[in-house]
Amino acid sequence: MWTYLPPLRDMRFVMDELLEVRRDWSQIPRFADLDADLVPQILDEAGKFAAAVLEPLNGPGDLEGCRLEAGAVRTPAGFGDAYRRFREAGWPSLACDPESGGQGLPQLLNVALYEMLNSTNHAWTMYSGISHGAYETLRAHASEFLKTTYLPKIVSGEALSSMCLTEPQAGSDLGLLRTRAEPLGDGSHAITGTKIFISGGDHDLTDNILHLVLARLPDAPVGTRGISLFLVPKRASDGGAPNGVRCDGIEKKMGIKGSATCVMSFDGSKGWLIGEPNRGLAAMFVMMNSARVMVGLQGLAHAEMAYQNALRYAAERIQSRAVTRPPTAGERHPSGAEPIVYQPAVRRTLLTLRAFVEGERALVLWCAHLLDLADSHPEPARRAEAHDLVSLLTPVVKAFCTDNGFALSSAALQLWGGYGYVHDYGIEQTVRDSRIAMIYEGTNEIQAVDLLVRKVIGDGGVKFGAIVEHVSAEADACENTQGCQAFGSALRAEHRALSRITAELVAESATAPEYAIRAAADFLRLVGLVVLGTLWARAARIAAAHGADPFYEAKRETAHFYFDHLLPEAQARREAVQRRDKALPWVDAPG
Amino acid sequence: MWTYLPPLRDMRFVMDELLEVRRDWSQIPRFADLDADLVPQILDEAGKFAAAVLEPLNGPGDLEGCRLEAGAVRTPAGFGDAYRRFREAGWPSLACDPESGGQGLPQLLNVALYEMLNSTNHAWTMYSGISHGAYETLRAHASEFLKTTYLPKIVSGEALSSMCLTEPQAGSDLGLLRTRAEPLGDGSHAITGTKIFISGGDHDLTDNILHLVLARLPDAPVGTRGISLFLVPKRASDGGAPNGVRCDGIEKKMGIKGSATCVMSFDGSKGWLIGEPNRGLAAMFVMMNSARVMVGLQGLAHAEMAYQNALRYAAERIQSRAVTRPPTAGERHPSGAEPIVYQPAVRRTLLTLRAFVEGERALVLWCAHLLDLADSHPEPARRAEAHDLVSLLTPVVKAFCTDNGFALSSAALQLWGGYGYVHDYGIEQTVRDSRIAMIYEGTNEIQAVDLLVRKVIGDGGVKFGAIVEHVSAEADACENTQGCQAFGSALRAEHRALSRITAELVAESATAPEYAIRAAADFLRLVGLVVLGTLWARAARIAAAHGADPFYEAKRETAHFYFDHLLPEAQARREAVQRRDKALPWVDAPG
Repeated sequence: MWTYLPPLRDMRFVMDELLEVRRDWSQIPRFADLDADLVPQILDEAGKFAAAVLEPLNGPGDLEGCRLEAGAVRTPAGFGDAYRRFREAGWPSLACDPESGGQGLPQLLNVALYEMLNSTNHAWTMYSGISHGAYETLRAHASEFLKTTYLPKIVSGEALSSMCLTEPQAGSDLGLLRTRAEPLGDGSHAITGTKIFISGGDHDLTDNILHLVLARLPDAPVGTRGISLFLVPKRASDGGAPNGVRCDGIEKKMGIKGSATCVMSFDGSKGWLIGEPNRGLAAMFVMMNSARVMVGLQGLAHAEMAYQNALRYAAERIQSRAVTRPPTAGERHPSGAEPIVYQPAVRRTLLTLRAFVEGERALVLWCAHLLDLADSHPEPARRAEAHDLVSLLTPVVKAFCTDNGFALSSAALQLWGGYGYVHDYGIEQTVRDSRIAMIYEGTNEIQAVDLLVRKVIGDGGVKFGAIVEHVSAEADACENTQGCQAFGSALRAEHRALSRITAELVAESATAPEYAIRAAADFLRLVGLVVLGTLWARAARIAAAHGADPFYEAKRETAHFYFDHLLPEAQARREAVQRRDKALPWVDAPG
Repeated sequence: MWTYLPPLRDMRFVMDELLEVRRDWSQIPRFADLDADLVPQILDEAGKFAAAVLEPLNGPGDLEGCRLEAGAVRTPAGFGDAYRRFREAGWPSLACDPESGGQGLPQLLNVALYEMLNSTNHAWTMYSGISHGAYETLRAHASEFLKTTYLPKIVSGEALSSMCLTEPQAGSDLGLLRTRAEPLGDGSHAITGTKIFISGGDHDLTDNILHLVLARLPDAPVGTRGISLFLVPKRASDGGAPNGVRCDGIEKKMGIKGSATCVMSFDGSKGWLIGEPNRGLAAMFVMMNSARVMVGLQGLAHAEMAYQNALRYAAERIQSRAVTRPPTAGERHPSGAEPIVYQPAVRRTLLTLRAFVEGERALVLWCAHLLDLADSHPEPARRAEAHDLVSLLTPVVKAFCTDNGFALSSAALQLWGGYGYVHDYGIEQTVRDSRIAMIYEGTNEIQAVDLLVRKVIGDGGVKFGAIVEHVSAEADACENTQGCQAFGSALRAEHRALSRITAELVAESATAPEYAIRAAADFLRLVGLVVLGTLWARAARIAAAHGADPFYEAKRETAHFYFDHLLPEAQARREAVQRRDKALPWVDAPG
């Protein structure tokens, strides 16, 4: 009953019509000659892999979980075999450079692939999901020796990676970390310390694991300016001797139970510096945008799975009479009861899911496309423009989509009634699995401060002007499109309000340092709602040019639903942002 | 680290000052002579039992879960022993009639007891939680034979009960149920059928289990008018032969894993009619209000546990610099990092939890007190008035408090960062356990329709006038209290808006049958927010008469926080209710 239909039609719509990616690709040498048939073929194959190989392992993997046996992590049955098939099909190399053995395809396709992997098996996808970030980090900052030795292994999928950041006393505040790196005199370092919450710190999918470890060099400055990044392999060579890297435990977690979350200890483990000494955080920043987009994607992926399964269930579940019936409804069921999809509360939930899911897909794929432009466009100005825009959108994608992923999964669960609480029906696992994405890769609270304080107020709102302008441009376009004027005037109002409120925040933060931090979460949510509004308006404009095709009719209908029922939340968020003078008292610990 | 401090101070505040229950008790013969010291003693003992006996079993019970072995359910280690102690302490009889062996104390105390039980171990509390409803049903509707035989066993806790309503095809729509009851000629019936989602359908806490089973008599009318209620014991007599009642399976669930959720089959099991034939739902309605208040209470109980543990953790967890520090802060930590409780996002979460938790406690205890008045006040008019009011407040308590229980637990989890996702820290279990309360005892969507369509619009808004009047009276009182005028004017605005919107709903529902159903969830949330506003205003008025006592200062501060930051949601809910002309399209199943 819990099944997956890859949303290929909507992905093609977003890529080809909403983002018109081929127009940009035609200007990028490595993408200019991409066969028109290749993209849908790749997406189709990815969807088949997700539905046929990963989805069947999802529920059983949750029940079985991971085990730590004699210091080695055993993943759930089937996970290793699925990874072998994933690797054999060449998926790890999809968006990597040909010079490292990659296929050189757009990151956009990799993101579409990962939406489908996360929809069907978030836990399994954790293992390979870290690889692309490690690839980007090594490509940008590693020495030739490290690149030559390790990049091909990452690209081929022969080795997987882990990101070793967190320590017990250093979570959101990495400046507090204590792991040490001692020079060994041969250009390598001995790494010693304990890391926690390491996804894929150990597993049985690959023989070697390449750990990216944050540590302090001797005499490094305190705080975040004294942190360096090292590559520490599980084995110094293929099939070689252990390197003092040990998994000391795995966590019992709320969800993603098939993903091993490890306590890792490094005991004089040999490692190599990546990038400059004490510039470890900067070296990792190169992958920050794509890594956070990938986490936002998980929120979208869970909401998609919740949506399509809830819709099927609601159409089949016969329960109670409905006050009103659709004109297309057939004869009544003998009992007088009807599919619950006729019920207003059920329709509202399903439409909310659809509007957020499809809007977020447009947003996430837009970000992925911007990452490609920032990386590969021949014109420096286009690269810089894309980079600035995706840097602003990244915290929105990460926090907005993952907050929604959890909230919408829970809303969907409600449609199953008691069945929703039972493991066999799938949705309760989605709720549990989706919860982690609000926390890792920077909590959603940190995303909000990153957006408002660092990125918007940080430059006086200058770069954020591109997003404000984007809203205004879509308002113009709607006002000039038959049937879309209502979207135009609504966006015009949102544009004015967003301009005004951003200017106020920039101005007032100068004298009230806490104000922006207090307002950050509401501001991020506001931006997410308005940006989704522009994407829905654009979808409606495109759909307006089509006739009675049900796909485009649904787009128009959902755009109206979004503007009528979901975008109004923006008003409440604005008011919350503007509640500057309302006290936020200190909270005392219990006496 | 996950511990429980019973909120006794706040309970006493609500009972003695906010509700002034002793003024009403003095008019009720069975409560008039209650020793002033007895109530705090009982609450203190209840808190000790919850903290010392139940809390330590909560996490382990979740990991162990229930097992079905040779047709018998085994509960987690320690559950049986805890029940023995619970029974020996006389807790099952607390609010039962002395004539059945009860202690005759107010339901108010039972509700306070159950808040503490649910805070510390929701799963364990499921077993005994059903008993009081069974007691009320038998007391109101059962024959003298059944009362004599079974009531003392329920009151003493010798036997526990289950409620057997749901069948696979009959969840929210009980009219579809198929279990049959055949007269046996001796006044008893043979019950045959399958029930699902039966909490405590089997267990090892008591030898006998008294099942209350909905079934159809021969030739019963179809639908809900053909349903009768039967008492079907697991054993026909103490230690006696089995009665054809079998547990065919237990569910793997998201949470409350220590509570056995059973598939029960009845195979010609001997049962006795409770109440009139075909009037089974009416017989169960007698316990509907108290049962739903008890579920709303679970939402409060989880939020309380989340709140107090999050507060302790936030005060201890040192991470990052804060932009502003409280005047009472001591020297900075050597690292420069500080307790996260200084962070604005953390304070907002904690204050939100505190404001909802303490407001909901006032609401739930008010309902419990109204149940006592409806049951026991000597004046029929006072009984009727209390009954009408609690009938209106019950769906609000059930849906509002359980929606909040889940949302607030999840908000609290976020404070722990990655630790929040790990079982050892307690909060992830709270999130999972709290989710069921939004579903069972009538989904929250059904509560909303019950409130707006059946209870408000059903009588043209007449009885609901008592709640509207309650808001107005509190506005009056605040306007006449020094320092509370701001609450008064805010409540005055809420009162006017609530009156107007209710009148509109009553008027428009006559011509637009779906409108009220669509608006129901937002209306219920609106009522919850406004009612909590009146209770917070009242708390602030009481606190205004006290000096610098920290308890009352916190009440004043939290009341302001509620009005400044939480009550504004009412505006968004009103606008949603009034979005009458915005389409809510039909949703098609995937092609």
